[in-house]
Amino acid sequence: VYDDIMATRKTDYINNFWKAIAHDPVLLKRTWEDLKATMAPGALDALTKELLYIAVSVTNNCQYCIASHTASAFSKGMTPAMFKELQQVVGMANETNKLVTGYQVMIDARFEPPLNTAK
Amino acid sequence: VYDDIMATRKTDYINNFWKAIAHDPVLLKRTWEDLKATMAPGALDALTKELLYIAVSVTNNCQYCIASHTASAFSKGMTPAMFKELQQVVGMANETNKLVTGYQVMIDARFEPPLNTAK
Amino acid sequence: VYDDIMATRKTDYINNFWKAIAHDPVLLKRTWEDLKATMAPGALDALTKELLYIAVSVTNNCQYCIASHTASAFSKGMTPAMFKELQQVVGMANETNKLVTGYQVMIDARFEPPLNTAK
Amino acid sequence: VYDDIMATRKTDYINNFWKAIAHDPVLLKRTWEDLKATMAPGALDALTKELLYIAVSVTNNCQYCIASHTASAFSKGMTPAMFKELQQVVGMANETNKLVTGYQVMIDARFEPPLNTAK
Amino acid sequence: VYDDIMATRKTDYINNFWKAIAHDPVLLKRTWEDLKATMAPGALDALTKELLYIAVSVTNNCQYCIASHTASAFSKGMTPAMFKELQQVVGMANETNKLVTGYQVMIDARFEPPLNTAK
Amino acid sequence: VYDDIMATRKTDYINNFWKAIAHDPVLLKRTWEDLKATMAPGALDALTKELLYIAVSVTNNCQYCIASHTASAFSKGMTPAMFKELQQVVGMANETNKLVTGYQVMIDARFEPPLNTAK
Repeated sequence: VYDDIMATRKTDYINNFWKAIAHDPVLLKRTWEDLKATMAPGALDALTKELLYIAVSVTNNCQYCIASHTASAFSKGMTPAMFKELQQVVGMANETNKLVTGYQVMIDARFEPPLNTAK
Repeated sequence: VYDDIMATRKTDYINNFWKAIAHDPVLLKRTWEDLKATMAPGALDALTKELLYIAVSVTNNCQYCIASHTASAFSKGMTPAMFKELQQVVGMANETNKLVTGYQVMIDARFEPPLNTAK
Repeated sequence: VYDDIMATRKTDYINNFWKAIAHDPVLLKRTWEDLKATMAPGALDALTKELLYIAVSVTNNCQYCIASHTASAFSKGMTPAMFKELQQVVGMANETNKLVTGYQVMIDARFEPPLNTAK
Repeated sequence: VYDDIMATRKTDYINNFWKAIAHDPVLLKRTWEDLKATMAPGALDALTKELLYIAVSVTNNCQYCIASHTASAFSKGMTPAMFKELQQVVGMANETNKLVTGYQVMIDARFEPPLNTAK
Repeated sequence: VYDDIMATRKTDYINNFWKAIAHDPVLLKRTWEDLKATMAPGALDALTKELLYIAVSVTNNCQYCIASHTASAFSKGMTPAMFKELQQVVGMANETNKLVTGYQVMIDARFEPPLNTAK
Repeated sequence: VYDDIMATRKTDYINNFWKAIAHDPVLLKRTWEDLKATMAPGALDALTKELLYIAVSVTNNCQYCIASHTASAFSKGMTPAMFKELQQVVGMANETNKLVTGYQVMIDARFEPPLNTAK
């Protein structure tokens, strides 16, 4: 798995996360394969996916994840201007999420999800 | 404020969030102005910002916010394929955030933030 | 326990929370006694304590808790103006919490806690 | 902005949060103006607002925010007795939030929000 | 995948979660395989794993997850007495998590993790 | 209280959490008594309760709680294999919680809670 991580990322460095979960080879293998597939460019490009990862990690207050994915995003082309707008959006989203919650706002009928047929 | 919301969004509909916080005109005005500036295209395009908003809202479990911003993202060009990749990234990020936390992984020295001189 | 709840609150109504946890009489008794002691006026008055309860409940996105403690706060004298300022503070706090986190801000030396001798 | 922060707070110290977000002058200006307006005494006094800020920050597990706003609250007159009651309320609220959630308690009809006409 | 879900669970019912993510066949397949492996009895028995799932879901406030995994746990032998103790532990853990956070308690040297060699 | 902690835990060590909240003797006494009762073996054994505590603490991102309860779980017989499966379950639960949320999955009628008569 380490070899594939280094080859995929074009680096000879394995960061602490992988070393930590390497105690559980099953978890290591599954997590790497899932992450590799999930973060590969597709309908969304690789940088956008890193930005989304940061947004989740900040909201979850995961220091390690913020540090590692911010570094990763910069290496994939995030500019300082993009970093700043990212933080602005994450801040605003966390604020308005709580205004919605505190004011107990009911979902507008027109916002019924268009994709989820199980509802 | 309602007029500017409708003009900016090219709609004649005011959704429940704005009606709710309109009980507090100071909050309404400030939130709208902040949101309008934050969500305008800049270094990040408007759709990417909507995707980030959804990522935060899902992580915060804000049902209203998910419904309204998912609708908004579709209106700004999010395809079903993009929606699916977004959910995959949000799911994986929440999983690995917790693996990092449960394994108490220490930050690699090389992940020191490059932007924040206050540290 | 129901009798003491009704006597303390000067009501003949037992809300769903107490009925739900009454399935576990040990939990019911302990929770009521702890809550009664915690929410009694002391260094902080009873209304301030309700406002704090709402702030936590909104941040945790607990719909029931928000509804019941908002009703309780109004019954203890919260005015609409106080409700609005409460929501503003909760919104701002959630926003700046995440800006701090996203920018990975390090704690200033002068903010060392003055109360906790265990550190 | 730094001048107004120092003048408003009657200090010559700028804490790390403001230095960090000063990388983004737009964010710095907006955040300071919003925070200044939000935390000013109104229907709620300035100390109560600090207590609410701490309650949110503890629930969000934001170490920096807890340290800075706890210091700020002490400077605005929070006594050790108030600090202790604050922690008790925050602890109890987080506990009962989760009891409500785990027991899947349904909202009592009488707790319909009195303020939100958008519902 | 549906066939394997029904065979593994000895049921002819597919619940809404699987129907929802079936819009994304890649996610459906991966999630089912991961979940099947993760929830299979091993060093921890299947019921303990369901209890852990509920504990996470309550803490995350995920209503669907609580409802489905509580039903699943009952089907795997959870007794009402076990359900009640589960809720007590989840409630207490959420309370003391926040007391630790609010009092800014520093980690005791003796609690250094014994498993994680990456630290 | 310290004496009872040491006697119950068969140790002469008081960890930082108890020293911190000892500033508030009311909180110390109540928290210890509640925790002692909650964590005692009952329908669930003591180790299972520790695992649940860890699952909550990881989800809440409480570093101190994770470190202390992981140490406690090892002392009560958690094996490395159990630790690894615990982390796998916590990771998966956090992931699927968010897939459920992002896909806005509606609760199946058959998952109505069997225990809660207050609904």
